[in-house]
Amino acid sequence: MTSRFKGVLTPVITPFSANLEPDSARFVRHCQWMMSNDVGLAIFGTNSEANSLSVEEKERLLDALLEADIDRGRLMPGTGACAIPDTVRMTRYAVRAGCGGVLMLPPFYYKGVSDEGLFNYFSTVIDQVGDDALRVYLYHIPPVSQVPLSLALIERLLKAYPKQIAGIKDSSGDWNNTSALIREFAPAGFEVFAGTEALLLNTMRAGGAGCISATANVNPARIVQLFRTWEQADADQQQADLNSLRDLFQKFPMIPALKTAAAHYSGDASWSHVRPPLVALNAEQSSALIKQLEERKFTMPGLPRHGAA
Amino acid sequence: MTSRFKGVLTPVITPFSANLEPDSARFVRHCQWMMSNDVGLAIFGTNSEANSLSVEEKERLLDALLEADIDRGRLMPGTGACAIPDTVRMTRYAVRAGCGGVLMLPPFYYKGVSDEGLFNYFSTVIDQVGDDALRVYLYHIPPVSQVPLSLALIERLLKAYPKQIAGIKDSSGDWNNTSALIREFAPAGFEVFAGTEALLLNTMRAGGAGCISATANVNPARIVQLFRTWEQADADQQQADLNSLRDLFQKFPMIPALKTAAAHYSGDASWSHVRPPLVALNAEQSSALIKQLEERKFTMPGLPRHGAA
Repeated sequence: MTSRFKGVLTPVITPFSANLEPDSARFVRHCQWMMSNDVGLAIFGTNSEANSLSVEEKERLLDALLEADIDRGRLMPGTGACAIPDTVRMTRYAVRAGCGGVLMLPPFYYKGVSDEGLFNYFSTVIDQVGDDALRVYLYHIPPVSQVPLSLALIERLLKAYPKQIAGIKDSSGDWNNTSALIREFAPAGFEVFAGTEALLLNTMRAGGAGCISATANVNPARIVQLFRTWEQADADQQQADLNSLRDLFQKFPMIPALKTAAAHYSGDASWSHVRPPLVALNAEQSSALIKQLEERKFTMPGLPRHGAA
Repeated sequence: MTSRFKGVLTPVITPFSANLEPDSARFVRHCQWMMSNDVGLAIFGTNSEANSLSVEEKERLLDALLEADIDRGRLMPGTGACAIPDTVRMTRYAVRAGCGGVLMLPPFYYKGVSDEGLFNYFSTVIDQVGDDALRVYLYHIPPVSQVPLSLALIERLLKAYPKQIAGIKDSSGDWNNTSALIREFAPAGFEVFAGTEALLLNTMRAGGAGCISATANVNPARIVQLFRTWEQADADQQQADLNSLRDLFQKFPMIPALKTAAAHYSGDASWSHVRPPLVALNAEQSSALIKQLEERKFTMPGLPRHGAA
C-alpha cells in the first residue's frame, strides 16, 4: 500500500471552550479546512497540546472526525505516551479506526535511556497492538521530549518491523540529522518528514516525503504550493516567503500565537484558549502579532467563520 | 491536622509479572514491609516507574493497598501527569481514598514553561479536585522532569492555597535549593523532604521534615534510625554509612539495581522486571551488585520471602 501522507501535514491545534474542554465541533471544522487545502492531519502532536489531553479526550476527538467522514487514510494521530498501556490503547484505537498511520513519541519521562530500552518500548507497543495495518511514524523531537531517536535505533526497528516502521517526523531542527535519515533509510521507502516547513525544500530535494508543519494550521495553501512545485524555478523564493511568515510567528510562543491568529481570522475568540502549562498571548502580544500579520496582508482564505454553518 | 508524613518515605518500587503487568499482591507485601519499618509510602514516584503506568493501573494498585488495610494517612501517591484531567482523576481518587497527601509532578512535556503556566496548572487541579482534605506535596525533580519549581512559584501557590499546599519533595540534589526552601517556607509549616537520604541529616538540622528516599526500598531501618536519632553524637557516622550504601547502588542504574536487590534478597526473581524504556541489569551487573552487597554483609531483615504467605 502506498502511503497517502506524502506532502504537507499539520499538527492540528486543539480548540478548547472557556472551561478548557475540547471543542469537537470546532476541531472538525478546522480539520475540514486543512483537508480542503490538501493538508494531512497529524492530530495530537506537540502543537495540538496532545499531552495535555487524556486518552479518553483524544478518542472522543478522533470519533468526531470519523463521524464527519474525514478521509481516514490521511489521519496520522499522535499516540506515543510515557506508559505503554496508554500508547497501545491509543494506537489500537487509531488503527482500528482506519487511520493511515500514527505518529509515535518515545516515552519522555526518563532521560538518558538506552537504545535497548527504547527498542523494547516500540517493539512491545507494536507487538501488543498486533495489527498488520499499523504504520508507525517515529517522532524525533529532542528539544521538547529530551529523548532522541538515534539512527542506530531506527535501523534496528526497521530490521525488526520493516512493514510497521513507515517513517519519521524529524523535529530536531538539525538538517544534518534529517539529511542523514533520508540518505540512510529513504531509498527503502522510509518516509522522512521535516518537522518544519522551513526545511521543506531541502527535504524534497534530498528525497524526503514532505513536512509536518505547525504553521500549516494558518498558512496551509502556500506550504502545499511549495510541495507541489518544488522543482520549479521559483521554489527558493517560495521557501523564503514561507520562512518569513514562520519567523514572524516564532517571535511569539508558537502554539498560543497560532491560536491567536485562528481566533482573529475566524472571528471566534475562544480559539485563544490553551491548557496549562501553556499561557495564551497577553493583549500586548496579541495586538503585536495581528498588527504584523495585517501589515503583510496575511489572510486565511476559506477559514470557517464563527457562527457559519 | 498534623501531617503524619514527617520522617522517611519511599517511592515504592512497582513489581511486575513476566508479562509486565503490575503484581498487586507483591506490591502489598513490599508496602507492608516498608510500613513495618516505619517508612511512609510515596507510591507512584519516579522510582516506582509511575509514569510507565496508566491511571487505571495506579488506581488498581492503590485499591489493593486499601483492601489490605494499609494506614491511609501514610500514603502519599504520586498523581501529577502532563494532562490536567489525568492529574485531577488520580488526585481525586487518592483524596477520596483517604490518603494523607499526594506528591504532584508539574506537567513535564513542554519545557521552558512559565511560572504563570505552572501556577495555572496546579490551581486548576486543586480547584477541580475541590476537596478540603487535599494536601499537595510538590515534586521538584528537574534532572528528570526538566521542569523546575521556583521559589517564587511556591510562594504564590502557598498564598493562594495555604491549606492545600503542604510541602515539597526536593529531588534537585542541590542543597542550596533545599535549604532555601526550608528557610523560606518551613517556619509556616511547609514540610520539606529531601529527595535522597544523603541529605537527611542536613535537612533535619536545617528544620526540614525528612526524606523521600529510593534506597529506603532496600535499606529502610537504618535510614529511619538516622531520622529518629539525628540529634545524637553518632549521626554523622550514621549518615556516612547510609551514603556509602547509596553510592554502591548509584554505580548502577538505580531503579533496576533496587529491583535486583529485592529479587535477590526475597528469592523472587520476578522482582527484576522493569517496564521499557528502563532495562533490567544484565547478568554481569547483577552479579557485581550482589557481590558488593554481600561483601558488606548487607541484608534486608524481614523482607517477605518468595512463597511465604
